Amino acid sequence: MPNTNRQWKLAARPKGLITPDVLQLTECPIPVVQQGQALARVKYLSMDPTMRIWMADIPQYMPPVAIGDVMRSFGFAEIIESRHPEFKKGDKVTGLTGLQDYALIGSGETSNFQKLPSIPFLADTSFLGVLGINGLTAYFGLLEIGKPQSGETLVVSAAAGATGSIAGQIGKIHGCRVVGIAGSDEKCKWLKDDLGFDAAINYKHPDWKQQFSAAIPQGIDIDFENVGGEIMQTVMNRMNLGGRVVLCGLISGYTKEDPGMASFAQVLTKRLRVQGFIILDYVSRFMDAGKQLGMWKMMGKLKDRQTIVQGLEKAPDAINMLFTGENMGKLIVEV
Amino acid sequence: MPNTNRQWKLAARPKGLITPDVLQLTECPIPVVQQGQALARVKYLSMDPTMRIWMADIPQYMPPVAIGDVMRSFGFAEIIESRHPEFKKGDKVTGLTGLQDYALIGSGETSNFQKLPSIPFLADTSFLGVLGINGLTAYFGLLEIGKPQSGETLVVSAAAGATGSIAGQIGKIHGCRVVGIAGSDEKCKWLKDDLGFDAAINYKHPDWKQQFSAAIPQGIDIDFENVGGEIMQTVMNRMNLGGRVVLCGLISGYTKEDPGMASFAQVLTKRLRVQGFIILDYVSRFMDAGKQLGMWKMMGKLKDRQTIVQGLEKAPDAINMLFTGENMGKLIVEV
Repeated sequence: MPNTNRQWKLAARPKGLITPDVLQLTECPIPVVQQGQALARVKYLSMDPTMRIWMADIPQYMPPVAIGDVMRSFGFAEIIESRHPEFKKGDKVTGLTGLQDYALIGSGETSNFQKLPSIPFLADTSFLGVLGINGLTAYFGLLEIGKPQSGETLVVSAAAGATGSIAGQIGKIHGCRVVGIAGSDEKCKWLKDDLGFDAAINYKHPDWKQQFSAAIPQGIDIDFENVGGEIMQTVMNRMNLGGRVVLCGLISGYTKEDPGMASFAQVLTKRLRVQGFIILDYVSRFMDAGKQLGMWKMMGKLKDRQTIVQGLEKAPDAINMLFTGENMGKLIVEV
Repeated sequence: MPNTNRQWKLAARPKGLITPDVLQLTECPIPVVQQGQALARVKYLSMDPTMRIWMADIPQYMPPVAIGDVMRSFGFAEIIESRHPEFKKGDKVTGLTGLQDYALIGSGETSNFQKLPSIPFLADTSFLGVLGINGLTAYFGLLEIGKPQSGETLVVSAAAGATGSIAGQIGKIHGCRVVGIAGSDEKCKWLKDDLGFDAAINYKHPDWKQQFSAAIPQGIDIDFENVGGEIMQTVMNRMNLGGRVVLCGLISGYTKEDPGMASFAQVLTKRLRVQGFIILDYVSRFMDAGKQLGMWKMMGKLKDRQTIVQGLEKAPDAINMLFTGENMGKLIVEV
């Protein structure tokens, strides 16, 4: 066993992709295990797009990694020494190991590790993917937010990625027509031939939007969105009434500015729910609501005000007043 | 009674605001009432931003108005002649009258009219606003999608408009802190002094964003969004975790192109539900989900694949592979 621990520390905030100045490889002694701690040898590190978010000094769902700190990441590790009540030597664990050779469990962010069961025929790396954070993300995102119904059409972007490939398969398990969007013919072949996707579209083909439209004859009921930008907009344009968008990632925007996606980034990191609304969907309940509104109005709890324009001939000008902000309260044309 | 019916017909699709070539004022004879029809004298026309959408030849929630047709609008009218079983002379009704002097009920879009109760002290025009489409929109949009809880902060844009002014008051009835955004000091004064809003911000003031931040010390739980564009983005930046956005209108985009709002326009007209998702919210259920994923994996229903990069020293390059699309399946660094 070597006596140094290599660590990738965050040295600068990235602008686009990770340039050599962003992460710095350093060495330090392997930490001494104190009471209540355990030392784990990191074997596999999970590479996730969200790492790029953690590097940026922007409001997000966890604190950004501080300059000078070991870069955060998920990882798979094996306990090599323990003075921690929950772990013993030889235990296999996953958690936020960080980009380093050794993780000290029971200090700082490394306090939340999970001991893994020993399952025959299952590779250790599965605990970082299909049975790890990606599998769980696909599972809860699709089932809790997407709520797939048999016969519905599910579109998955970044479909050949760790999360997308599982989301699509869970969609198949639930009886959906599943269409993946990915960035190479090889990825699309894998999705169709090995994973059983109904169709897979390579967005780098010039006519991919036509191919995509042909692959979703019934429109789209659920978008499991990992990408954002033009791909998301193309999907959104083909959504069916009452469709659901699981906003799981916006990877196209992580390494560049995309003002069109700025609000969706807020929706993602703050787990907002945005729902479109057209009053026509509530026609059958108008009478009850009208009674309640009338009651509030009589009780003086609702006040209203009109801006009245005289004469049918003024109707076109009146419409424009709505957009120039000239009216207050309800704008009405008296015929 | 004059013997002609003036009608505003859609002559051309508007580009921005309504220019004189868009609507054409024509005259025709007052229609003769057939069996099953009634004739109504239109008294008040409701001016609504959605009319601008109806004029455009884009996919939307109702068919666009055809060139040459009477322009669609809500209106308040009085029955002057009836051969219709549900209406008698003197009845007051609301419905899609269109921009004209007389509406023939029982033909085409004018078939869905509602007879109004006679309520003392209530102006006829209230049936187009607070007790009409705007009141109903505010009621269902806020209560069904926004789900306001006492003590939460509600922000309403276009707050001095027909719908926003009611939405804010319903928020107050439900115990919310209500902050309105409007376009003049006079409007803001009305919202605060007459309607009881806790604060109202004039977005035309140069420092409105600072004023706005000061007015929402606890952040924003619900956005009743009528405007879109920069106003919506400013609101979104200040939303709390798990907040809700009732996407009711995007009026800033109806008369001009705003690519940043194109996907939100789809959310609005198709009543989509977009929900941000971060796996951390589901930590307490990881164990059960892991068992299910493991089961599917053993049964061969879930397949996974790894791209493995050798060596901790390659970690920065590996992160970049996520954004350049070089990996397939789960990307892992073997330490």
